[in-house]
Amino acid sequence: MKRLINLAAGLAASMTVAAGAAHAAAAPARGLPSQWTVYSGDIEHDSAFKAPAGAAGAALNKGVTWRFAEANALKLSDKLGKDAAALGPRTAPVKTTQFLGNAVGVTVVGDVVYVESDSGYVYALNAVTGRQIWRAPVDNAAMGDPVVVDGRVFVGTGDTGFSFSQILRAQSGSRAGLVRGLSWGGIYAFDAKTGKQLWRFGTRGENMPSECYADNTLYFGNGDGHMYALDPATGTLKWKTPIGGFDSMSSCTIYQGKVFAGFTDPNDLAAVDLHSGKLVWRATFPNVANTGMGDNSPTVDPVNHQIVQVAVANARVTGGKSSVNTAVLGVDARTGKVNWKTLLGRGASPPAYKASVAMVHGGIVYVSSPVTNRLYALNGKTGAIVWQSAIPYPQVPGLGRGAVTFDNGLLYQSTGTRLFAWNAKTGALVHTLRIGGRFGIVNPVIVGNTMFVSNSWGWVFALPVATVAGSKA
Amino acid sequence: MKRLINLAAGLAASMTVAAGAAHAAAAPARGLPSQWTVYSGDIEHDSAFKAPAGAAGAALNKGVTWRFAEANALKLSDKLGKDAAALGPRTAPVKTTQFLGNAVGVTVVGDVVYVESDSGYVYALNAVTGRQIWRAPVDNAAMGDPVVVDGRVFVGTGDTGFSFSQILRAQSGSRAGLVRGLSWGGIYAFDAKTGKQLWRFGTRGENMPSECYADNTLYFGNGDGHMYALDPATGTLKWKTPIGGFDSMSSCTIYQGKVFAGFTDPNDLAAVDLHSGKLVWRATFPNVANTGMGDNSPTVDPVNHQIVQVAVANARVTGGKSSVNTAVLGVDARTGKVNWKTLLGRGASPPAYKASVAMVHGGIVYVSSPVTNRLYALNGKTGAIVWQSAIPYPQVPGLGRGAVTFDNGLLYQSTGTRLFAWNAKTGALVHTLRIGGRFGIVNPVIVGNTMFVSNSWGWVFALPVATVAGSKA
Repeated sequence: MKRLINLAAGLAASMTVAAGAAHAAAAPARGLPSQWTVYSGDIEHDSAFKAPAGAAGAALNKGVTWRFAEANALKLSDKLGKDAAALGPRTAPVKTTQFLGNAVGVTVVGDVVYVESDSGYVYALNAVTGRQIWRAPVDNAAMGDPVVVDGRVFVGTGDTGFSFSQILRAQSGSRAGLVRGLSWGGIYAFDAKTGKQLWRFGTRGENMPSECYADNTLYFGNGDGHMYALDPATGTLKWKTPIGGFDSMSSCTIYQGKVFAGFTDPNDLAAVDLHSGKLVWRATFPNVANTGMGDNSPTVDPVNHQIVQVAVANARVTGGKSSVNTAVLGVDARTGKVNWKTLLGRGASPPAYKASVAMVHGGIVYVSSPVTNRLYALNGKTGAIVWQSAIPYPQVPGLGRGAVTFDNGLLYQSTGTRLFAWNAKTGALVHTLRIGGRFGIVNPVIVGNTMFVSNSWGWVFALPVATVAGSKA
Repeated sequence: MKRLINLAAGLAASMTVAAGAAHAAAAPARGLPSQWTVYSGDIEHDSAFKAPAGAAGAALNKGVTWRFAEANALKLSDKLGKDAAALGPRTAPVKTTQFLGNAVGVTVVGDVVYVESDSGYVYALNAVTGRQIWRAPVDNAAMGDPVVVDGRVFVGTGDTGFSFSQILRAQSGSRAGLVRGLSWGGIYAFDAKTGKQLWRFGTRGENMPSECYADNTLYFGNGDGHMYALDPATGTLKWKTPIGGFDSMSSCTIYQGKVFAGFTDPNDLAAVDLHSGKLVWRATFPNVANTGMGDNSPTVDPVNHQIVQVAVANARVTGGKSSVNTAVLGVDARTGKVNWKTLLGRGASPPAYKASVAMVHGGIVYVSSPVTNRLYALNGKTGAIVWQSAIPYPQVPGLGRGAVTFDNGLLYQSTGTRLFAWNAKTGALVHTLRIGGRFGIVNPVIVGNTMFVSNSWGWVFALPVATVAGSKA
């Protein structure tokens, strides 16, 4: 069922927050995507939206089909990604996801699709035709989905790397204080219509996570272990709070007057006051493995007033083989107290990104584990597993990294080499579809009856939702 | 005095080597630069060449003046480089050298200047006018000077970074087996006339060092700890020999039928047979600090039949301050036995690249130390210091990283923010010139009476040698 709440454009952004109180301002508009204030466009990470009014909306309601090849795109028939001969089948897809294609899903605002590419470009595409409106260069990989508010497009750049000085720090036995990000790290603002660069704010660490936006402020956690607040008009720093560790791919979210993000070494979930920049609480979870906390984007469960956080946990090496578990935690948004913790099961440690992004719909937590290659539904109040289903094709390691999207009783998932449709109530697999290439941490974005996905090979797709559901020939 | 040996174009490349014997084939043409087979165009790292015949040569003999701004070039008045506000005065110039501008000097063949930029481009510029002939994109930073032989331009890509798995390896206490290079690593061949890409060979580690060429084979050591030999026409692998450690910025050289490069962790100078790919010897030096061996490009001293290698040595932390020494070693090219070792003096550890590139001219070793900020002349037979001079302006840390160039009794040096001319016999400073920007590991290339230099801010300059010598108004 599509969300029908339809905030007027810009309303959420311009509202004033009563500090410390729950407020609507932090929640993105869940109907018409007239702005995109948070990773996946929704604090519940449920990327289903009503189509905009007018001809474009009518087309998206009918379902459009196109595909767009970015600069450096690989052939869709390519199996393992760039330089597989030198890198091997485990590393080649990872490197391609991190340095060539699209690490996460797209942004849709009005009839425009905004996409960040690791090849150093931001694209604006016509949502109906797939034609390029503009392309803007950035100075490093762009791995998020752009935040788009009030005619500005915000993009962070950065990479997964470490300098040699960080190697020396690690060799000295220290785990704390590592800075992630090798080459340039910056936050950019572009004009949404023209792609003209408005400003750039440089940082010491990477900005792989997506930013989040509320109350005329742009927030982000990043690779130098800080939470930042910038003026969106000028890029001027409002405040900067040291958290410690590094935020790898944990895209921030906003709820109850606080901005949340995960950090690695120490493995903390941090809650920072939106206005003062003061750390309200930090939750440290024991036995969390790298880089599960700093890689996981917190999800808001507004029914249970909690943050749902996924953590790579209990790493173990047995007989030379490393295994991990996936922990899902319900954390009280006000206090940081853990309401419940559910382990999804042990398995071989997947390559690179080992976490996954939870999605909440109606108080149910939907989350996959790239360790067990399964999709789960959890009771948001207790953490009890309601159902679980094996994601087929486990020969591709690390399935289920991206959030699923709920639409008309089905869950849509883009993972490995395929799109999946699941029955949200039972977990029964409804349909699978292979469209070529390979998905990273990608959430399907649904607008009307059109689904938008991007992939690691450097492609953006639009296709009718019915095609993915299998209800159309 | 300019070298007058003038091999016919292509001769060195097509000659067959008698294995194990000294041979002319490995030595680049030292007169007319009709090809460029090794870092700095000369196995002695002495980049002074006769001008080519014809009108272009006449102009270069007179001395031309131009400057060329590459993509992303900074203002020449910029003092600390990109993102200095976030990175600080020690890190900003390093990052700019590694990810924006030109890490080392240029290549000149005929009347064309070939330049590799960290911003991901290779340029061919008209040597007389500075106008761009072509620009070719590559997939990561290009930090060497291109090898150019028989109408093909060879370029390596790679970066200084490490992946998170290398951090985990370092944290486990292991120093061996680290792979350097985060994003793409590749060797490219381009058509010298058009810039058309002919082939690309992907590697696991970075290819920051320059390649070297002999006997219709392209050689290189790289970040995955191997020495490679490729067919220059097709990019096909001829052989690949594991050395261990990583070659960071040690550009290979060729002498007496062997290819030489330095590696870090273990800190070895390796000599590999050109034809069989077999390791002939490896010299391990005690107390070498990171990454001095894998960063240093070996220099051939043909008078004393030895390899001159610089190593960052005897690292020490006293009162929280780390200091190092700079060791220069004369190593028997046939056996790997150390003929002599000279310590240039202790000082504060400079940021990033801590080594320097030696230049040999007439059996004298000219080498700077970025630790003492001094330039030295050493007797090549004994290693005894003949003279030493302080490089002025030591407020810029890490002076003297690039090789100096000998021309008409003077030594030319590009370091810090300035060009210097020194009396080669006495070490007396003759002239200094500031042209804006900042130099990385840059050797001045002299053709006729024109000097070519590139810098960390993304600029290439041509200027009359007399201007640098101070002999012209």
